[in-house]
Amino acid sequence: MAGSTFGTIFKVTTWGESHGPAIGAVVDGCPAGLPLDESSLKPYMERRRPNGGKLSTKRVEPDNVEILSGVYEGLTTGAPISLLIRSTDQHSSDYDALKEVCRPGHADFGFDAKFGIRDHRGGGRSSARETAARVAAGGIALIALGRLGVRFRTEVTAIGGVPFSRTEEIDALLDSLKAAGDSIGSEVECTVSGFPAGIGDPVFDKLDALLGQALFSIGAVKAVEIGDGRKVSLMRGSKNNDPFHAECGRIETVSNHAGGILGGISNGSDIRIHVYFKPTPSISLPQDTVTRSGENIRLGIRGRHDPVIAPRAAVVVEAMTGLVLFDGLLRNMTSRMSLVEKFYRLQ
Amino acid sequence: MAGSTFGTIFKVTTWGESHGPAIGAVVDGCPAGLPLDESSLKPYMERRRPNGGKLSTKRVEPDNVEILSGVYEGLTTGAPISLLIRSTDQHSSDYDALKEVCRPGHADFGFDAKFGIRDHRGGGRSSARETAARVAAGGIALIALGRLGVRFRTEVTAIGGVPFSRTEEIDALLDSLKAAGDSIGSEVECTVSGFPAGIGDPVFDKLDALLGQALFSIGAVKAVEIGDGRKVSLMRGSKNNDPFHAECGRIETVSNHAGGILGGISNGSDIRIHVYFKPTPSISLPQDTVTRSGENIRLGIRGRHDPVIAPRAAVVVEAMTGLVLFDGLLRNMTSRMSLVEKFYRLQ
Amino acid sequence: MAGSTFGTIFKVTTWGESHGPAIGAVVDGCPAGLPLDESSLKPYMERRRPNGGKLSTKRVEPDNVEILSGVYEGLTTGAPISLLIRSTDQHSSDYDALKEVCRPGHADFGFDAKFGIRDHRGGGRSSARETAARVAAGGIALIALGRLGVRFRTEVTAIGGVPFSRTEEIDALLDSLKAAGDSIGSEVECTVSGFPAGIGDPVFDKLDALLGQALFSIGAVKAVEIGDGRKVSLMRGSKNNDPFHAECGRIETVSNHAGGILGGISNGSDIRIHVYFKPTPSISLPQDTVTRSGENIRLGIRGRHDPVIAPRAAVVVEAMTGLVLFDGLLRNMTSRMSLVEKFYRLQ
Amino acid sequence: MAGSTFGTIFKVTTWGESHGPAIGAVVDGCPAGLPLDESSLKPYMERRRPNGGKLSTKRVEPDNVEILSGVYEGLTTGAPISLLIRSTDQHSSDYDALKEVCRPGHADFGFDAKFGIRDHRGGGRSSARETAARVAAGGIALIALGRLGVRFRTEVTAIGGVPFSRTEEIDALLDSLKAAGDSIGSEVECTVSGFPAGIGDPVFDKLDALLGQALFSIGAVKAVEIGDGRKVSLMRGSKNNDPFHAECGRIETVSNHAGGILGGISNGSDIRIHVYFKPTPSISLPQDTVTRSGENIRLGIRGRHDPVIAPRAAVVVEAMTGLVLFDGLLRNMTSRMSLVEKFYRLQ
Repeated sequence: MAGSTFGTIFKVTTWGESHGPAIGAVVDGCPAGLPLDESSLKPYMERRRPNGGKLSTKRVEPDNVEILSGVYEGLTTGAPISLLIRSTDQHSSDYDALKEVCRPGHADFGFDAKFGIRDHRGGGRSSARETAARVAAGGIALIALGRLGVRFRTEVTAIGGVPFSRTEEIDALLDSLKAAGDSIGSEVECTVSGFPAGIGDPVFDKLDALLGQALFSIGAVKAVEIGDGRKVSLMRGSKNNDPFHAECGRIETVSNHAGGILGGISNGSDIRIHVYFKPTPSISLPQDTVTRSGENIRLGIRGRHDPVIAPRAAVVVEAMTGLVLFDGLLRNMTSRMSLVEKFYRLQ
Repeated sequence: MAGSTFGTIFKVTTWGESHGPAIGAVVDGCPAGLPLDESSLKPYMERRRPNGGKLSTKRVEPDNVEILSGVYEGLTTGAPISLLIRSTDQHSSDYDALKEVCRPGHADFGFDAKFGIRDHRGGGRSSARETAARVAAGGIALIALGRLGVRFRTEVTAIGGVPFSRTEEIDALLDSLKAAGDSIGSEVECTVSGFPAGIGDPVFDKLDALLGQALFSIGAVKAVEIGDGRKVSLMRGSKNNDPFHAECGRIETVSNHAGGILGGISNGSDIRIHVYFKPTPSISLPQDTVTRSGENIRLGIRGRHDPVIAPRAAVVVEAMTGLVLFDGLLRNMTSRMSLVEKFYRLQ
Repeated sequence: MAGSTFGTIFKVTTWGESHGPAIGAVVDGCPAGLPLDESSLKPYMERRRPNGGKLSTKRVEPDNVEILSGVYEGLTTGAPISLLIRSTDQHSSDYDALKEVCRPGHADFGFDAKFGIRDHRGGGRSSARETAARVAAGGIALIALGRLGVRFRTEVTAIGGVPFSRTEEIDALLDSLKAAGDSIGSEVECTVSGFPAGIGDPVFDKLDALLGQALFSIGAVKAVEIGDGRKVSLMRGSKNNDPFHAECGRIETVSNHAGGILGGISNGSDIRIHVYFKPTPSISLPQDTVTRSGENIRLGIRGRHDPVIAPRAAVVVEAMTGLVLFDGLLRNMTSRMSLVEKFYRLQ
Repeated sequence: MAGSTFGTIFKVTTWGESHGPAIGAVVDGCPAGLPLDESSLKPYMERRRPNGGKLSTKRVEPDNVEILSGVYEGLTTGAPISLLIRSTDQHSSDYDALKEVCRPGHADFGFDAKFGIRDHRGGGRSSARETAARVAAGGIALIALGRLGVRFRTEVTAIGGVPFSRTEEIDALLDSLKAAGDSIGSEVECTVSGFPAGIGDPVFDKLDALLGQALFSIGAVKAVEIGDGRKVSLMRGSKNNDPFHAECGRIETVSNHAGGILGGISNGSDIRIHVYFKPTPSISLPQDTVTRSGENIRLGIRGRHDPVIAPRAAVVVEAMTGLVLFDGLLRNMTSRMSLVEKFYRLQ
């Protein structure tokens, strides 16, 4: 059934296949009066766009976002915002040989099992290209969060376990992967500061629960950690608990093992997220696999693919985080009757 | 806003505070005709129930589930199933001293920041007691899955990094924690076999995305891994991809690094989930913290608390996984027009 | 699938069958800090309760509402509010003869066609008794609306086409119905004043659209009108449009044919709703019908039934209207970015 | 907040303003394998399209629907279907004079009160043009229903109370309205046959409740009736109940006062719906109204407007009905555990 919509108040629906005429998103529930135009989304799109370098595919598209509705004279109107990104550089014939194949590490087999039909070109609906629509939609949330003083720092932290700062080592690794026709896993960290305390809805819509859904919904993510993540399983409570401290009426935690979220609600400390990506499943090295009709074959995938996912996916992590956090802020506005009463007296 | 409901077709709403007269859940959307009575939920409740041993709190309640609606003559009727668990052994006065305190590692501060009011007794709504209602509701999903041939194996894998099989080492660790008034982190693994391929809804309602929400919605979970989890970030594609193989018309993966989910859709292999818990935040060792009015204090928590979370939480992990998987199966039934047509001709 | 939940932010889930041990509702998303106790719901429950008079069934129950969660020291906490109403006066044996029968005008046949199983006692899930849970839940919304200055006037306007004010004529009509073992249709009007302009969400969640769902979800409602209702189909635009007029900076409509809603958004004028009920389907006069196994039979229904629906259903109309309007107010709080910014600076 | 999405499994989101570059809809959750191309939607679009005759506006656009995603080689794939309708004949300057005006009978005042900003051109988001996107999306549901043997008959029944069959009288009425610069109310009836029994979800998602939402979400609808509608309020139970009769194992009602729905569930009889539209609010006759700044003015609306709403809205009624009914069929597929078990053994 339907699974292409995310969010409760700030609601995003994406659509589109890798090699269709366009992909896009509809953002419904954006508050009116937010300054927005096509250029304001460009910085986010640029971070996701392949740049033709060692880290990314040779498929290079401008990825301009057209805003078809919901904005008037440079401001959002409260009506749904339709975002359109035209496709310009599909090489569908690259995929002719894959029409009947279930590529290892891909959703092909699952789509066949579920729907019995599939647009195989470029991975169709399960292509990472779908995330361009998320970045455009998430960009709007990030712009809104920026106005509220929330700041993001999102970085590739490691590739194949090598810290991203060791540039030369990374460079050599990528060269060897290219030579071998192989790919490699990677990691992204996202830190959010300036996010207020009290956001997140017990019990199933905890802030970290919705982050969990948001981040695992990015293809190739196989692990998500909040704060110290899996390391907390090794810790004693006396070391892992973050003491609260009050200074001039302001309450803060002294340490931040929790990553800014306790019991599913933000506590005002930095929100820290760590995401682990599997290696790109499309590799040119030959692999054993099957066709849809159940024939065992040996497959080498041609086409244009990133050897590693994190560099272009970092902004997708940020966009999805932004969607959760901005929606969380909006959801929180009805939490107290006294503020509901004040709101309706204010107007 | 509302956050106490989980699921799309098989929908669970929980309610209740730790020291209120009862807690419970309403399960709406359960198919009619499923054999169910109060005794069928008992095995699940027993696994979550404190047993008074080294691993758990001294608060011991029978946790009998009463079914108030939705079942007639031993079968579900399709009407909402109301599940009630009465409280019998609250010691609310244990918490009198905590009324004005923000306990470190707990949601107290967040609830205050959000709602400005809070039932502090036993942790109120953020108490782990809420998970008893989840286990009752999830138990129904697990019973239904059992009829479809889906099997679960859920285990505590480690406590404080010590494999759970090393019983004596664990025993010594718990003794030393008790002596020190401290607690420790832990891990749970859940493996699901017999789950069909093709389940999960692209793109935001991927099977792993909904598992991510479900599992992070359990208090104290700080990391979730699917399949090989974070280890995939170290792998090459040629090693991480699971080759497909066809044998007598049946397609399977040869290895299972992916943990049974590719592109958010199940592929018929075992679903493997690993969850990491922080140490119980309630410890008797003194900690620095604050009161609601912003006074810095030093706090030692009395009361009855488990020194480690995983042993009683394992069944909660299984229950939440069951909710996602059974809902996924139901959601999938409308995926193909040919099956819709067949369904309405069948009847 | 699940259909027992109503609302988006202020979310109500009802459960329970007519002759089960209890019925109830869970209200999730109620803002914290609303004064509430069991006695505050009593006036609403009293209006729905059978009083043993000419207009209502002889089944008389106290319909006390127990609040099991979500309220602490007389205030809502933001946690889900569980409401329980115990059954005390079921006569299940009255229904033994109906176990295999599809009563005309009832949902029996539909439940069988859908679920293949049914709790027939007292109508089971489709009994009007379910509305007691709605009144309890809706009562909370009505209390909250009262604090915001919103006032309701809900009246039975006619029975069998006879204006309710003509008491003697109504009396004679009811006597003749009783003698004949028959029932009669009826009407209810609800007028809401003091409701602010600007509430309602284009395009599918228009205020009147959600009222339409809410009111048609009350069993036996067969027509709903907003404002002048069907009469507008006879009108010219020049007569039907309500002119706006400004006086001392306050804009109001001069007439109110629209019933306070234009384009799905409230305009500050009174909201006027008219609802039409069919006659009670349970009558003692003999009727032709069938059994579940397809036998044609002749049926006279014994048991305790109201001869007319509106008198006890008026408060249900008010409760459902209250749910839509309070949820609409909460939904509206995120409509403008400037108010979102002010909210987060305010706190 | 977000209000532009309708449906639970078959989910439609519309977007777009009257004078923007395009309007559109995203249909998520359509079963895979449904034959669909752009030409299959044309017949529905034609019925909504202005034809330049007496009954409709002079704004004439081709209203071609482009399918941007979700269809591959003539079949739906289960991925979201993006539908785009470009605008070609806007005369935005017609609306320059209305920028600061609250037109009587329109949503202008409400949008201002809610959002504080508004795209006034052609009515912006509240324009009836939005319904073109609904017809395209609803057309897909109608095509699917057609394959399942469900048939629709939708007709304008009266204009200004004059039965639509009296062509000459209608003609004279429209001439007089044109001369007077006025408009008139109207009625539409929709009858659905071949729809199976057992569809609709108690208690809030009753089939008639969701029809109520769907139909009142069409701008200008002020009354909705199911079956005999308001007339049932005048009836006795003995006359209004539809007796069931069994013939060769098939159970049917002998009469159909209920309009095919009992207790919110279909009973296999024809579903009958009657909808009442107010007169078009845009008239050239001068009216009293206000500006946004609160000045009282006298307004005559120029521009191109239908004098009566029903003729072009009939297909919108059918489309919205189709959305509810097809979604209802899909929702029903998980109602029985025995059919869930059969489904997973079948595959």
